[in-house]
Amino acid sequence: MSRFFDTRLSRLEAYTPGEQPRDMKYIKLNTNESPYPPSDGVIKALGEAELAKRLRLYPDPECLEVRTLLSVVLGVDKDELVLTNGSDEALSFAFMSFCEKGVIFPEISYGFYKVFAELYNLKYRQIPLKDDFSINADDYIGTDETVFIANPNAPTGLFLGLDEIERIVTSNKNRLVVVDEAYIDFGGVSAIPLTKKYDNLLVIQTFSKSRSMAGARLGFAVGCKDIIRDMNTIRYSTNPYNINSATLAAARAAVIDNDYYMENCKKIIETRAYTTKALCELGFEVLDSKCNFIFAKHKELDGEEYYLELKRRGVLVRHFTSERIRDYNRITIGTREMMDVLITQTREILAAKRG
Amino acid sequence: MSRFFDTRLSRLEAYTPGEQPRDMKYIKLNTNESPYPPSDGVIKALGEAELAKRLRLYPDPECLEVRTLLSVVLGVDKDELVLTNGSDEALSFAFMSFCEKGVIFPEISYGFYKVFAELYNLKYRQIPLKDDFSINADDYIGTDETVFIANPNAPTGLFLGLDEIERIVTSNKNRLVVVDEAYIDFGGVSAIPLTKKYDNLLVIQTFSKSRSMAGARLGFAVGCKDIIRDMNTIRYSTNPYNINSATLAAARAAVIDNDYYMENCKKIIETRAYTTKALCELGFEVLDSKCNFIFAKHKELDGEEYYLELKRRGVLVRHFTSERIRDYNRITIGTREMMDVLITQTREILAAKRG
Repeated sequence: MSRFFDTRLSRLEAYTPGEQPRDMKYIKLNTNESPYPPSDGVIKALGEAELAKRLRLYPDPECLEVRTLLSVVLGVDKDELVLTNGSDEALSFAFMSFCEKGVIFPEISYGFYKVFAELYNLKYRQIPLKDDFSINADDYIGTDETVFIANPNAPTGLFLGLDEIERIVTSNKNRLVVVDEAYIDFGGVSAIPLTKKYDNLLVIQTFSKSRSMAGARLGFAVGCKDIIRDMNTIRYSTNPYNINSATLAAARAAVIDNDYYMENCKKIIETRAYTTKALCELGFEVLDSKCNFIFAKHKELDGEEYYLELKRRGVLVRHFTSERIRDYNRITIGTREMMDVLITQTREILAAKRG
Repeated sequence: MSRFFDTRLSRLEAYTPGEQPRDMKYIKLNTNESPYPPSDGVIKALGEAELAKRLRLYPDPECLEVRTLLSVVLGVDKDELVLTNGSDEALSFAFMSFCEKGVIFPEISYGFYKVFAELYNLKYRQIPLKDDFSINADDYIGTDETVFIANPNAPTGLFLGLDEIERIVTSNKNRLVVVDEAYIDFGGVSAIPLTKKYDNLLVIQTFSKSRSMAGARLGFAVGCKDIIRDMNTIRYSTNPYNINSATLAAARAAVIDNDYYMENCKKIIETRAYTTKALCELGFEVLDSKCNFIFAKHKELDGEEYYLELKRRGVLVRHFTSERIRDYNRITIGTREMMDVLITQTREILAAKRG
C-alpha cells in the first residue's frame, strides 16, 4: 500500500476472480462461462472492417441502437434501461447511489456485494440463509436498508419465487430492492415485468452467461425512469463511454440472435439435469440449481480436496473457503462432453479415495 | 431524480460529452478524435474469428500480455502500469483513492476533474490560470492536497515544461501529483521517466487520441509499484474485468504498430501548424497548442456565434460556456482536407459578418 492511499480504503479486501492458471490447458468449469460461442451474427459483426475503422471515434454514450433493440426484447421502454460495463458496473452504481440508509444482502451470495459495501463505506448487514441454503424472504420484509438479492442466488443456484420477491418489494415501498439476475435465463423467472408495477425495484442482468459474452463486458439494469436517470447521472460522472464500440456491435447482433442463445440455455438446462443425476448417483448432494452451475458436496470428499484433485486432473471448478460452504464446490455446466470428463474424473477420484 | 438517490449525490452535475448530433453528417472537430483509422494490425486483430469465439470467456483480468508489451514501449516495469477503461477510469480511481486531504487542479482544465471531486465528496480548490492561460507552477508548490494537472492542458493546449512538473512533484514528496497526459503525443514531453525517480507521481495516458482508439476505451496509468497496487485494489473492488477481450486484442496490435501512430501524430502536428497559420491570417488568436486541437478566438466573432455558424455549415467544434473561455472554440485537428473545409467556411462566415 502506498502512503497516499485513503485510510478508509486501506482495509478493503478486493474481489477475487476465479483463477485463470496458465500452466496447462484446463476444462474451465470455474467461472460460469458459456461453453457455446457467440452467434454467427456476433462473429460477423466483430469482423466488419467498418467497426475497426470506426474505433477512432468515441462510441455512442447513449448506446441508443442497442438500448432500443434490447428494450423491445425485454418489453420495457428504452429509458427504463441502462447498459453497463458488465453487471458489476450496474451493481457498483447501485451501491454508490441508492444505499444511504445501508444495505442488506444474503450472507452467502455474490462475493462482490460485501466489497462494494466496504468500498462505499456503507453500513451493511449480511442475512444468514436458511439451513437448506434458501433465502428467507421474511428477513427482508419491511427493512429500511436497500436490499440486494441475487436471484437465482450464487453459488447455491437456488431460485426465490417471484411472489416472494414481490412480497419483499411491496413490504416497504420507500426502500429500493435490487435483484441481481445474472443467471436468470437458466430456469428462473425474471422480475423485470414487476418494474412496471413498482418504482422501488431495480433488476440487473448480464450478457456474460447466457449470451456467451463474458469477454465483451456488457450488463444492464431495468427500473423506473427516475432510477435509470440516477444511474445515468452516475454513469456520466464516472465513465460516459462505458460501453465500447466493439461491445456495442456484438451486443446488437446478440440481441437480434436472441433465439440462438435461448436454445443454448435449454441445452445447458438439459446438461445440468444430466450432470446432477450422474453426480447424485456417485453419492453427491446437489442443490436444486436454476443456474449454469451446480453446487455440490460429497460426504467422503473434503471440498478443497475434491477441487485440488480435479485441478490436478485438468478440470477447474470453484471452491470457496468460507466456513459454511467449504464442503461444496461450484461447478459450471459446460457441454455434455466437458461434463462427461468431470464425471469420469470424479468417479476415479472417489475410487482412488476408497482404495 | 428518484427518492432513493443518495442526498450527497443529488446536486452532482455530470460530465457533458461533446455532442454527437444525428441530424446530418458533420465534419467532427469537436471531440479530439484522430482522423486516421487504427493500424492494419488492429483491423486484422478485431477480424480474427478466434477473438469472437473467445468472447464467451472472461478476459484476462491482469491484462498480462498487453501490459508486458506496453511496458517495454514505455520503458517501465509491467507492475508500474495498470490498464483502465479509458483514462477516465484511471482518473476516477485516482480521485477515489488518493485524495483524502483534498485536491487542487486548474480552474480551466478537463471538466471531469470537478465532477470526480464532487462525486467522491472531496474538498477541492480550482486554481486560476495566468492571464495568458498558462499554469503557474508556483500555485502548486508544497500544497498538501493531491494535484491533478492535465499536461498539455485542455482546452488551452498549452504545455507545462517537465522542469516545472518536477518542481511541483519535489516540493512536497508526501503528496501525490497526478499528471494527465491524454494529449502528450502531439508535441509534449512525457513525465513517465520521472516516475522512476519519484514515488509521488502518477502519469495517466490514453489510446483514445494518438492511438485512434477512442471507440475501444483504453487508458493507462504509470507510477511506482505501491501506487499501482492501490489502483489495482480499487480496480478489483469495482470491475476486475474492466478491459474487454476485443480491446485487449486491438491494444496488442496497436502497441506493436506504434510507429504507424507516431507517424500520424507527426501529420497532425503539421496540420496543426497549417491550420493555425491559416486562422491567424484570418485574424484569429490561437494559443500555442501541443495537442490535437487548437483553442482560438476572433475579435469580430462571438465564440458561440462562430460555433453555431460552423455547425449550420456542417462543421462541429467544441464551445464552452464558462465565463473566461466563452470567446474561444476548441477545434480538433483532422486531416488537411477537413481543416481546409473549416478554413473555407470560416472565411465565408467572416465575409458574411463583415457584409
